[in-house]
Amino acid sequence: GYASDTITATLFPGDGIGPEIAEAAKKIFEAAEAPIAWEEQYVGEAVDPRTNSFVSRENLDSVLTHRIGLKGPMATPIGKGHRSLNLTLRKELQLFANVRPCFSIPGYKTRYDNVNIVTIRENTEGEYSGLEHEVVKGVVESLKVITRAASTRVAEYAFKYAQDNHRSTVTAIHKANIMKMADGLFIKCCREVSEKYPDIKYSEMIVDNACMQLVKEPTQFDVLVMPNLYGDIISDLCAGLIGGLGLTPSGNIGLGGLALMEAVHGTAPDIAGKDLANPTALLLSGVMMLRHLGIAGPAENIQNAVLGTIAEGKYRTGDLGGRSTCSDFTKAIIDKLD
Amino acid sequence: GYASDTITATLFPGDGIGPEIAEAAKKIFEAAEAPIAWEEQYVGEAVDPRTNSFVSRENLDSVLTHRIGLKGPMATPIGKGHRSLNLTLRKELQLFANVRPCFSIPGYKTRYDNVNIVTIRENTEGEYSGLEHEVVKGVVESLKVITRAASTRVAEYAFKYAQDNHRSTVTAIHKANIMKMADGLFIKCCREVSEKYPDIKYSEMIVDNACMQLVKEPTQFDVLVMPNLYGDIISDLCAGLIGGLGLTPSGNIGLGGLALMEAVHGTAPDIAGKDLANPTALLLSGVMMLRHLGIAGPAENIQNAVLGTIAEGKYRTGDLGGRSTCSDFTKAIIDKLD
Ligand SMILES: CC(C)[C@H](C(=O)O)[C@@H](O)C(=O)O
Ligand SMILES: CC(C)[C@H](C(=O)O)[C@@H](O)C(=O)O
Repeated sequence: GYASDTITATLFPGDGIGPEIAEAAKKIFEAAEAPIAWEEQYVGEAVDPRTNSFVSRENLDSVLTHRIGLKGPMATPIGKGHRSLNLTLRKELQLFANVRPCFSIPGYKTRYDNVNIVTIRENTEGEYSGLEHEVVKGVVESLKVITRAASTRVAEYAFKYAQDNHRSTVTAIHKANIMKMADGLFIKCCREVSEKYPDIKYSEMIVDNACMQLVKEPTQFDVLVMPNLYGDIISDLCAGLIGGLGLTPSGNIGLGGLALMEAVHGTAPDIAGKDLANPTALLLSGVMMLRHLGIAGPAENIQNAVLGTIAEGKYRTGDLGGRSTCSDFTKAIIDKLD
Repeated sequence: GYASDTITATLFPGDGIGPEIAEAAKKIFEAAEAPIAWEEQYVGEAVDPRTNSFVSRENLDSVLTHRIGLKGPMATPIGKGHRSLNLTLRKELQLFANVRPCFSIPGYKTRYDNVNIVTIRENTEGEYSGLEHEVVKGVVESLKVITRAASTRVAEYAFKYAQDNHRSTVTAIHKANIMKMADGLFIKCCREVSEKYPDIKYSEMIVDNACMQLVKEPTQFDVLVMPNLYGDIISDLCAGLIGGLGLTPSGNIGLGGLALMEAVHGTAPDIAGKDLANPTALLLSGVMMLRHLGIAGPAENIQNAVLGTIAEGKYRTGDLGGRSTCSDFTKAIIDKLD
């Protein structure tokens, strides 16, 4: 038993299919004897004035206390003047890097085989500054902000990640031929950091060419690091290569090892409450969480069981072309655990 | 004979493989009796102070006089402080829309079938404003500029294009959930224009989702319209779906019908002068040019001969997996002309 070393993690079940897939995760983690105790947090019904968001001070404090969390999909509340849930979490928790491993799922066929890419996205600035204004009527300016501090921080994370995960190459994605100063600063920082990692190959690619190369031959890529918006675009593109957001885990990394892993797909209100949801993205995000905590055994065990169940094909949810319920898929995974 | 109605067009053979593929185009256009007389223009060896670019005043005046042109690839000259060739042409000629039809080439297999997408890119502003500065050390701001005038102009072009080319749907690509004012203005303009085209379906899609959907199922898309950088990225992504920039034509549209069509691939210095280049992108850009001028017969004839030759597969250049020279490929196309 792991009981004595149990780690408490914040769990945001989220909305729509969120509670069902969170239930699946809890069951599988328990069956795998992953030493995690969940503290469940619900994002409120009303805007918390302390955060100007539906994300409350308590929600944030839970993650800040436990320094580790797992998050299901959250519905974007209607109404203006408050901040989006995702952006609030990123900003308030200083989640500076978004990490998305994207690998071909054995047995789930797409047009691409052997994809194995990790996108690492700067998560706090760039085109997401929120600084916009109308200069004169009909003329809007939007500020992209690139700083040496944030660029270096995400580059350092990318190289460290590559090293820890035995990856060979980090490629910085940019448009420094046009945004010479902004993206120029970003790649300058990446270059500087690369010098501290002589064993990791470093290369650069312009964002338009990168997107063309990704659809032509994604197996040429390994770890990608890039400013916020390119990361937003390319991580979704990569997810598309292997089947979509229902299959890709994601992690948000903060300062001092704080991390909030999340399923980035939607809340799927059309199938919510019907036991039809696919919990894979949340489960693999949970696996990332365990690995981040250094809990390698249960991480491996759960990942193998999830991928093995999908590969076998007998129990698959509707989005993967099967007819299983979420509960049956969950049971099948539990049966496959070591 | 068309002699009496001959139209003079500017031809920039360009650098690297440019002269060879321009030669192919001239031969094929002549054989097809396309009523075009070429005025060849060479981008200079030295920066012209009147344009602060290697593009000279004479280069620009040729296009401004004839109001139609075809352009091969141009090498980016080394050195700082002058403007890039492409950006100079776009800016000085006010080429406000970049149009890239992207369709599966029969007989040339990629992972995708039946792609038939036209990307229409705002070509003058957005992230390409060139307005950047260092606020304090290590903090750079880059300005994205979106105007009502340019957004409406490109939206109008997109809807008119859709109508003229019997297309059913225009989709505006944006990130207005983040750049609420800038991209918000862009889609507002698209919406307003869409109201004048009740027969064309109008939809909107967020850029990250659009890239995911494009790699998952590109056949769901028809005509796409978007700000500059998204257009840069998505037009290359789309080219990747059907085989790359060697196969995709492109057109830059200016005011009052002025147009400069171009092959957007590189100069391929490694194979330049060896009669190995593939002229397809330039030929199909020439076809776009003829269509733009309303010269439908020769346009159709040339396009069918080019696509027919590729489909047959006997004469293909190296990039398409064949062993033909550019000259033999050109001859084969001429043999296929009606
Ligand atoms: C929902 C939206 C604000 C968000 C983003 O643009 O970052 C999403 O696309 C993502 O990738 O997490
Ligand atoms: C060469 C570069 C300036 C150009 C651009 O970014 O627009 C190119 O990528 C293009 O698409 O024509």
